[in-house]
Amino acid sequence: MRPSRSFASDNNAGVHPGVLKFIAAVNQGHAVGYGDDAYTDRAVRQFKRHFGKDIEVFFVFNGTGANALGLRALTNSYHAIICAQAAHIYVDECGAPEKFTGCKLLPVRTENGKLTVEAVRAAYHGIGDQHHVQPRVISITQASEVGTVYRPEEIRSLAQFAHQHGMFLHADGARIANAAASLKQNLRAATSDLGIDVLSFGATKNGGLGADAVVFFDARLAADFRFYRKQGMQLASKMRFLSAQFAALFEGDLWLRNAQHANRMARLLEGKLRRNPNIKIVYPVEANGVFAQIPASAIAKLQKRYFFYLWDDEQSVVRWMCSWDTSEQDVEQFVNFVNQIVRA
Amino acid sequence: MRPSRSFASDNNAGVHPGVLKFIAAVNQGHAVGYGDDAYTDRAVRQFKRHFGKDIEVFFVFNGTGANALGLRALTNSYHAIICAQAAHIYVDECGAPEKFTGCKLLPVRTENGKLTVEAVRAAYHGIGDQHHVQPRVISITQASEVGTVYRPEEIRSLAQFAHQHGMFLHADGARIANAAASLKQNLRAATSDLGIDVLSFGATKNGGLGADAVVFFDARLAADFRFYRKQGMQLASKMRFLSAQFAALFEGDLWLRNAQHANRMARLLEGKLRRNPNIKIVYPVEANGVFAQIPASAIAKLQKRYFFYLWDDEQSVVRWMCSWDTSEQDVEQFVNFVNQIVRA
Amino acid sequence: MRPSRSFASDNNAGVHPGVLKFIAAVNQGHAVGYGDDAYTDRAVRQFKRHFGKDIEVFFVFNGTGANALGLRALTNSYHAIICAQAAHIYVDECGAPEKFTGCKLLPVRTENGKLTVEAVRAAYHGIGDQHHVQPRVISITQASEVGTVYRPEEIRSLAQFAHQHGMFLHADGARIANAAASLKQNLRAATSDLGIDVLSFGATKNGGLGADAVVFFDARLAADFRFYRKQGMQLASKMRFLSAQFAALFEGDLWLRNAQHANRMARLLEGKLRRNPNIKIVYPVEANGVFAQIPASAIAKLQKRYFFYLWDDEQSVVRWMCSWDTSEQDVEQFVNFVNQIVRA
Amino acid sequence: MRPSRSFASDNNAGVHPGVLKFIAAVNQGHAVGYGDDAYTDRAVRQFKRHFGKDIEVFFVFNGTGANALGLRALTNSYHAIICAQAAHIYVDECGAPEKFTGCKLLPVRTENGKLTVEAVRAAYHGIGDQHHVQPRVISITQASEVGTVYRPEEIRSLAQFAHQHGMFLHADGARIANAAASLKQNLRAATSDLGIDVLSFGATKNGGLGADAVVFFDARLAADFRFYRKQGMQLASKMRFLSAQFAALFEGDLWLRNAQHANRMARLLEGKLRRNPNIKIVYPVEANGVFAQIPASAIAKLQKRYFFYLWDDEQSVVRWMCSWDTSEQDVEQFVNFVNQIVRA
Repeated sequence: MRPSRSFASDNNAGVHPGVLKFIAAVNQGHAVGYGDDAYTDRAVRQFKRHFGKDIEVFFVFNGTGANALGLRALTNSYHAIICAQAAHIYVDECGAPEKFTGCKLLPVRTENGKLTVEAVRAAYHGIGDQHHVQPRVISITQASEVGTVYRPEEIRSLAQFAHQHGMFLHADGARIANAAASLKQNLRAATSDLGIDVLSFGATKNGGLGADAVVFFDARLAADFRFYRKQGMQLASKMRFLSAQFAALFEGDLWLRNAQHANRMARLLEGKLRRNPNIKIVYPVEANGVFAQIPASAIAKLQKRYFFYLWDDEQSVVRWMCSWDTSEQDVEQFVNFVNQIVRA
Repeated sequence: MRPSRSFASDNNAGVHPGVLKFIAAVNQGHAVGYGDDAYTDRAVRQFKRHFGKDIEVFFVFNGTGANALGLRALTNSYHAIICAQAAHIYVDECGAPEKFTGCKLLPVRTENGKLTVEAVRAAYHGIGDQHHVQPRVISITQASEVGTVYRPEEIRSLAQFAHQHGMFLHADGARIANAAASLKQNLRAATSDLGIDVLSFGATKNGGLGADAVVFFDARLAADFRFYRKQGMQLASKMRFLSAQFAALFEGDLWLRNAQHANRMARLLEGKLRRNPNIKIVYPVEANGVFAQIPASAIAKLQKRYFFYLWDDEQSVVRWMCSWDTSEQDVEQFVNFVNQIVRA
Repeated sequence: MRPSRSFASDNNAGVHPGVLKFIAAVNQGHAVGYGDDAYTDRAVRQFKRHFGKDIEVFFVFNGTGANALGLRALTNSYHAIICAQAAHIYVDECGAPEKFTGCKLLPVRTENGKLTVEAVRAAYHGIGDQHHVQPRVISITQASEVGTVYRPEEIRSLAQFAHQHGMFLHADGARIANAAASLKQNLRAATSDLGIDVLSFGATKNGGLGADAVVFFDARLAADFRFYRKQGMQLASKMRFLSAQFAALFEGDLWLRNAQHANRMARLLEGKLRRNPNIKIVYPVEANGVFAQIPASAIAKLQKRYFFYLWDDEQSVVRWMCSWDTSEQDVEQFVNFVNQIVRA
Repeated sequence: MRPSRSFASDNNAGVHPGVLKFIAAVNQGHAVGYGDDAYTDRAVRQFKRHFGKDIEVFFVFNGTGANALGLRALTNSYHAIICAQAAHIYVDECGAPEKFTGCKLLPVRTENGKLTVEAVRAAYHGIGDQHHVQPRVISITQASEVGTVYRPEEIRSLAQFAHQHGMFLHADGARIANAAASLKQNLRAATSDLGIDVLSFGATKNGGLGADAVVFFDARLAADFRFYRKQGMQLASKMRFLSAQFAALFEGDLWLRNAQHANRMARLLEGKLRRNPNIKIVYPVEANGVFAQIPASAIAKLQKRYFFYLWDDEQSVVRWMCSWDTSEQDVEQFVNFVNQIVRA
């Protein structure tokens, strides 16, 4: 029988009970639609408390929406967005950013999933040449797609390069909570203090039901956003049920506790797996994901019991994610099973 | 003090307890993301039971998403979509259908909010002329934006006209439940049996938390839809929580009971308002909305206690909607207050 | 036998010999591509002499390109463009403006093809409402699609309304030469002096081979235009052959002589047709087109010898255009033939 | 003083006198606009004679238009187009293909500018996965951007791979004439016989004034094209002047003679340059371009007299193109000057 919790993805986890409680709690009487309600006001105030009072924040349905719309606010259609070759916006959103912004995404090879100023500089060219798309945004993913976390100084130099060259720094923060927890930073220190201009703040993988926020650290960039949100089909009528998710996550720093827990489970998993000499951990485990190279023949056998994704077919690398609800027992059972299949 | 329930919109109502219960019930362990889970399978089976086994159905976040994506599946960018001048897709979606499909929407004047074959015929021209957009879809709203309901034979003739002219019939069914309840039809009789090709089936206004379904009555039209859904930023990762809403609404025909109730409250409201000679009901009350012409001077006074939308500024027409949770007492209190302000 | 010149359209005429001479004259050796050549410099200087030294001007292939790209420079995708219901951009460009800008076009009913402030005001609503597209441009056609010409004060009031409401005034000037000739205004007096912000200046119908210019009266609006032109597929590599057409038309005011001639031929045609009591001229003949209501039975018979377009099928209105090359004899022969078919 | 002819680009050359003669020749009386004229019929017949009677062909303004529109005819917005990293559509069209099609372009590293089946295979993945764009087109450039020419069997294997995997093979033929001349193939043997599905056939660089054709070898793919052409702002009203250019180039095989001449001049240039040991020819000279690595210090000195483009800044590689009008004397003078600057 399949276990009730897998290591496939942090979005395979359910909703944290504390979040569901808040959803039920705001389900009282009528509330004006589309965000003009008291629950949304409260959630916005909480964002301002964590990110600074001058931000603008908008709630949307999911991470792809947050990314594509946030990028739209920073670009015109002839612009280019520089990102990692493995970036979610480049690989996993079925072209949504291109379709909604009209821009070209310029993929850059990375080590450990993180852009560097050197790599960005090589992609930054053709400036002022009417035949070329014009680089306008550097987009990073924090924590990255391969479970690594940008160091503060790495983000600061990317921000500096961006701003010196008339560009913006965008961050896909589907796992920003995991990154901040990993770095022991508060949310502001982990984002606007480093020079990020626009952030997709993901709630879904952090215990939410389904919600993302687009946070603008310079309110002027948000001037048109409410129209882009509606035209981008991302304006919820019963907004209070998105807002409640953020409120729940901010309550008693649930966002942080969830992230810390998931990170800790990933380190636990890593530690146990490292004892098996036939398993190679291929990226530093800095957030809630473990990327392991295992014998190709083991994959199908493992997947019989545990659903998970192959990350790199050729290299036989698999991705195992921990969630807010992963237990130590889950890890132990999983590693035991792995060790049965991948014998040391 | 403002009353806890208004007549502003059926999306100001909260989530039906039965729906919330289902959401909590599916919150068990992990489930594969993006719709490959058992809860989504169950909801799809329920749709097939109601709409026919050959349909294809996809869940999305909201009505604007359902409309724009459903229309995309039927069109190329040089096509035109014929709709009522007051259609939600024309007036209230901030250009989302145009942006996502590239098409032009051709607005048609209507009486009582309903397209007629005659009006559509007048908008159907320029066929084969490369300078003109090519009409490809007729889009109706059932129940309509002004609370009226197309008769079966009206839809049937629009479908016939569409199909005879190489077009499709699309229905924005944000309130299809209210229409079916009004006509005492089951869902299939109210839609595919009349020749509708693609339906946006709205759960949000019917007691849901936030979910819409795109129903294709000819599966071939759905061949590319999963890609459009993702590129259109409407693919939920924790899909089970959308699916659960539909499951709840189909359970014991909650969708029908909610719709019948809202419709009944609207008729109750209409009946009471009609006794006031200074209030004129301007559209037949056939679903859950009442459109009333009232003295202009009364509007602001009423809005002090009850939030609602002005429908037609010049004509001083207001829109009052009933919901699954509107009570007879709500209606009574509201009418009493209206009568205080608009004295007979 | 068909006559060599018809009254179907001013774009059915060929190239004026003076224009062809300029094209041959610039065909000397190599010239840097994409507009960085001396011939283009010269043409730009001529534009500045006619329109003012602070303009920015860009050459494109055709009128649809000039319109769609000029409108793009003024809008974001959530904006709306208010135009006449018969506007070329609304009816005859197969949705190119919508496709390239993402905007909705709001059609307004007109009398004699001309927008009025009153009509525009009625279409200007939903401001600041995130559900609604936001009006951003008023677009007029000068001379209009039905051969009428806006009076200077009419344009001035539309410009004033636009600017007071945070909008721009765009003019489709496919026949701006005919309008200026009709009003006895120079080009600057006919455009920027009246408050037009962006102009499509058409050469094709005025004796060109195929060229249009987008003229920005506020250079700041043109900041991104060279990128939009390239991304809009409207950047000519051998630009000198577009530039030469403008140079030829400005040489000795050929543009004006061509327009005056075409206008004069239209008045001649009108005068002769008016003598036939079975022909009704339906719009004031103020530029180079004559719109006539004729017996429906005559249309096919006339088209056997003369190709032309039916303007309004139901009303039996036809469109007859004069060109730079229409001769008095052409008019006479045509009217004689018309009188044979439509007997007085 | 600068010489009258440079080696900057084959689009810096003027119009071949034979082409200009045809343009003047069709400038007789009126012709119906938008392609419904006898001159266009003639040009279409000539295309059918060269490419086969079952083709469909459409004339557009330029290469970017031909590429973006041709690709649109083959794709939906969720598709991907596999191309070389140096492809014109990827690098030099300011994102026009992405903007018009909505697709993502997947750049592939190449040797000598040519795609291989192996490289394409590596980019072909994520098939059926809704998160990924779906590869639909392989696009090659023949002759390539670096002056090389695909061998017939290379194209044939790419076509075979494409068709076996539900994809199309598109060719950017801005220099298809040079490629066919180089391979001593007729146009059909060089294109449809090898499995190409859609071809951009460039006239501009081959002695034209400005014209491109989109050739569909399977007419069914062209069903919607006339609408895309108009919506893509690429429909010429005075079409006869585009058609005349093709007619001229087909007359007495001028297209072939122009291409053969340009290719021969490139080989002459190559031969002379190879004698200078400080100049390294970096790509096989198979068409009309020579790519040379020269001392970085020489570049600015050479550009003082001869305008040309730097191809690769870091590697100090320059691009020198020959045209239909390049003379042996031009080559000799240029090489003499190069040898003065880059001393052996």
